[in-house]
Amino acid sequence: MNLDVAVVGGGVSGAYSAWRLQQEKGETDRIGLFEYSDRIGGRLYTITIPGMPHVKAEVGGMRYIPDQHIMVATLVDHLEIPTKDFPMGAPAPIGAKCNIFYLRGKHLRLHELADPDKVPYRLAWSEQGLGPTNLQVQVMNNVYPNLGNLSLCDQMKVKVFNKPLWKHGFWDLMYRTLSNEGYQFMRDAGGYDANVANANAVTQLPATEYSDETEFLTLRDGYDQLPITLVKQFNDTLPGKMPKGKRVFMNHRLAEIEIGSGEYPYTLTFELTETTDNRTLVKATKSKDDDNTLVVKAKKIILAMPRRSLELIKSSFFENEWLKKNLSSVLIQSAFKLFLAYERPWWRALGLVAGRAVTDLPVRQVYYFGTEGEQQYGLPTMNSLLMASYNDISTVPFWKGLEDGEPYRGYRPACMEEDVTDVIPKTEFQATDEMVQVANRQVAEVHALPEIPMPYSAVYHTWNEDPYGGGWHEWKANYRLDEVMCRMRKPDDKEDIHIVGEAYSYGQGWVEGALTTAESTLQDFFKLKRPHWLPETYQLLPNPCPGCGDLTGCVECPDCVENLSGITPNCAKPIPIS
Amino acid sequence: MNLDVAVVGGGVSGAYSAWRLQQEKGETDRIGLFEYSDRIGGRLYTITIPGMPHVKAEVGGMRYIPDQHIMVATLVDHLEIPTKDFPMGAPAPIGAKCNIFYLRGKHLRLHELADPDKVPYRLAWSEQGLGPTNLQVQVMNNVYPNLGNLSLCDQMKVKVFNKPLWKHGFWDLMYRTLSNEGYQFMRDAGGYDANVANANAVTQLPATEYSDETEFLTLRDGYDQLPITLVKQFNDTLPGKMPKGKRVFMNHRLAEIEIGSGEYPYTLTFELTETTDNRTLVKATKSKDDDNTLVVKAKKIILAMPRRSLELIKSSFFENEWLKKNLSSVLIQSAFKLFLAYERPWWRALGLVAGRAVTDLPVRQVYYFGTEGEQQYGLPTMNSLLMASYNDISTVPFWKGLEDGEPYRGYRPACMEEDVTDVIPKTEFQATDEMVQVANRQVAEVHALPEIPMPYSAVYHTWNEDPYGGGWHEWKANYRLDEVMCRMRKPDDKEDIHIVGEAYSYGQGWVEGALTTAESTLQDFFKLKRPHWLPETYQLLPNPCPGCGDLTGCVECPDCVENLSGITPNCAKPIPIS
Repeated sequence: MNLDVAVVGGGVSGAYSAWRLQQEKGETDRIGLFEYSDRIGGRLYTITIPGMPHVKAEVGGMRYIPDQHIMVATLVDHLEIPTKDFPMGAPAPIGAKCNIFYLRGKHLRLHELADPDKVPYRLAWSEQGLGPTNLQVQVMNNVYPNLGNLSLCDQMKVKVFNKPLWKHGFWDLMYRTLSNEGYQFMRDAGGYDANVANANAVTQLPATEYSDETEFLTLRDGYDQLPITLVKQFNDTLPGKMPKGKRVFMNHRLAEIEIGSGEYPYTLTFELTETTDNRTLVKATKSKDDDNTLVVKAKKIILAMPRRSLELIKSSFFENEWLKKNLSSVLIQSAFKLFLAYERPWWRALGLVAGRAVTDLPVRQVYYFGTEGEQQYGLPTMNSLLMASYNDISTVPFWKGLEDGEPYRGYRPACMEEDVTDVIPKTEFQATDEMVQVANRQVAEVHALPEIPMPYSAVYHTWNEDPYGGGWHEWKANYRLDEVMCRMRKPDDKEDIHIVGEAYSYGQGWVEGALTTAESTLQDFFKLKRPHWLPETYQLLPNPCPGCGDLTGCVECPDCVENLSGITPNCAKPIPIS
Repeated sequence: MNLDVAVVGGGVSGAYSAWRLQQEKGETDRIGLFEYSDRIGGRLYTITIPGMPHVKAEVGGMRYIPDQHIMVATLVDHLEIPTKDFPMGAPAPIGAKCNIFYLRGKHLRLHELADPDKVPYRLAWSEQGLGPTNLQVQVMNNVYPNLGNLSLCDQMKVKVFNKPLWKHGFWDLMYRTLSNEGYQFMRDAGGYDANVANANAVTQLPATEYSDETEFLTLRDGYDQLPITLVKQFNDTLPGKMPKGKRVFMNHRLAEIEIGSGEYPYTLTFELTETTDNRTLVKATKSKDDDNTLVVKAKKIILAMPRRSLELIKSSFFENEWLKKNLSSVLIQSAFKLFLAYERPWWRALGLVAGRAVTDLPVRQVYYFGTEGEQQYGLPTMNSLLMASYNDISTVPFWKGLEDGEPYRGYRPACMEEDVTDVIPKTEFQATDEMVQVANRQVAEVHALPEIPMPYSAVYHTWNEDPYGGGWHEWKANYRLDEVMCRMRKPDDKEDIHIVGEAYSYGQGWVEGALTTAESTLQDFFKLKRPHWLPETYQLLPNPCPGCGDLTGCVECPDCVENLSGITPNCAKPIPIS
């Protein structure tokens, strides 16, 4: 098979790239999309639990911030995918302020975090009265006033404690600006280990998206409807040189890229995979003649994959000196989500409606999701969903240790679709009885209740295994992330091989990062016109530095590296994502 | 070159294997030892800091427990290597009880850990009054009385909370037997993340070696004198078919093992490496004809390496199903050590003589090492050594973030050898100014001192990078570690390729683990006689289970797997390491 563009990876950046290319070039070019598993979505993965078809369990990415994630928001509008609110607390004016924090064995409501006598951390006087978000804002303003509103270009020039901010690890910097107890409080009460990890201070320090006032949206029918819709249009409805319905190759694992010459310089060898019980493995061959591979020739390649997936590909492409050095410029962060389904939202009795509880127990964050009967078109039942654990990095091994054993069976709730035979959805991971028992006990402890009902169903996912490697990525300290994210889109000048996706983006951990790297790559290297639905003023990728290289050049910028003494006024363009 | 045995890895297990083989078979067999770097020792690595030639900085393994580590103790005696005490506190009867704990912003002496009103953790009533070691002993006795004195065989049969102990992660089990605050206290006050990691409960639960009463020894002239002495004897003094002085191949990286047939079935391809500024890299080739490799044929191979080093070797050997599954049966734990040298032991003013301070700051553990003038043959100076930070796993990234920058220069102390020109030893890693400033400030905070002198010298090492991967290993939950450690010595029945060392041993994190796997392999697969200096009663490797497979068989043991109902009395042989 000969392709003009081989897009590899059926996550949101791959789905988007294929869809856009097909839209603009499909009539002249042959575009193919390849996916390792039997599922479109990658790290967007929506699971529907019996008894609540309208409350979705998002075991991967679950939301976006319409004020900041302009590309997600406008694309969703353009595709006319129905959205819904993702509230972080009770309806206004109460909001999140009564949500629970259970830290160091002590229960607090959010508003009590402002009372230093109640907070079980020996905070410095200068830190008292501040919750974890405000603590971070104070530190940010202490380090550099208004840092969050500077452009990345300017942030890269900020010097703190005698060296550029981008050479500081966030934790290292916190140690010099907070007490250790202040840092521990920020970690424990913030809910995410990743938010206080020792990643690059430039991207970590202004990370205040998790303010309890931030407004989030999600997709009514599941966040993976975004890539699924894109792939459906790409495959079935758009005109094109590749026949309809035959543009997507599921269960194909990219094993090797060979670089040759001629019109189709790239030879991609795909191994066929097999998905059994929702686990995808390379198909075993029975004999030497049993060919298990598909060989594809391509003019151009888009690798729409995270770091670990890239590392699993064999190719001399990865011998490129720059790429070898910068593929490891991001940390791979592990994450874990466990959802439990109950016959009623027992948490309402405590005044808890939506949003999260935060704890230093291994569950770390508990999210109150909806009740079926309250959803648009919802069935008239009280069945309700709890994300019993959303945790990352240090607590992931706790849950990994509970993966082997008797599966949790659940029970048939009073209200459920009649035709459903099993209350536990079939997914890649099956929650064990012990995992559910332990999580349920922790959830009870977080809510200071002696006992809570056992859930009728349970589903979980762990983001630490191959081929994904982790749940999301964070830039490491000591890397020029502004230059790396730009150049990663075409790491080798001589090759038409492009890397897109969340991993090396300016929106790590969000769909926005995946879409902006993809769209900017398509514009800069595939000559695609900017889509009409995307606001003209929205900047897809921060310029490395004005005056020293344009987007496509991605040249190293000696001015930026050398002249770190301060902010030049003409460099101060505010950017939407802060 | 044709060898009877190629021993790969110049750490203690490789050095020992080569030495033993040469001793018993050197006159008939050709034995070669290969090492990646320019240094013998592996994870034993002794650095001498100017101004205190008799106080050694052990950036790797630093001590042994003569009562438990019978093989280390008797081997050291046999080789007549001078030892010295490694005290954990002031001289008796004071001992460690005045050593400092600085946790959650509060200072305590060790004896105050017994006072629940002073301990800044909301411990359960049942946990109050216990320090971290006693807490673990209590939990162990709660889980299974006297568990630490059972043989491994019996420990593998113990069932807790309805499943075998070996299927429990230690953290998972702690969550069911301790309050979360109890667990946090055990982690913070214990000093090591690794000791509370979610590794296999069978090996983690009885781990009470770190009791403050344990007696340790070390080698007077540095712990790496053990492998260095072995290699010197192997290479220079023992008789043999390989010429003296030409049996050791430094700066050789094992890149590939090809399996063929005939008398010398194994073809080992070594890449030559180059050590520049103490960093070892594969030698760059200037042209295609520039051969950078040494090809060696061998009858048998001993891979004396940790997990990560093994994973970096290319070979169809690692396609073996059993090996593929069990190579990842151990966790690779990262570690970091920073030593600071001062002109006087300023900590003595606080009554601190030896042993450690423990904190939840990123330094985690501070060890008081000796003063030059007090050592055997010591120069008459007060120059003194502090291990300012000994930390692992979660805190390693904090220090990795401080690795780039201006090196710490130190200063010339009043008393120093005249011929020394640089106070900073040349090692693989050079401490940065920022790293030393930050560590020194943390050490001052741990001691509740507003300021302490800056050190005149500094040296550090981080154990997380290739080729080692980490500082030590821990068995994962859900693995039959008794069977894996046995069979790892000859993973593939059909191949004479053996894996020895600390990683897959019953003494992980200790030299004892490295030596016992090596010696048992030599006895069982190379027909070497038990050395006369090793006590006959000392069991090198715990039997998987009496009656169902001998040491060499390593067969799976259905009785053990199925019959977990209790301890059979005739199975209860106490073993030396508990």
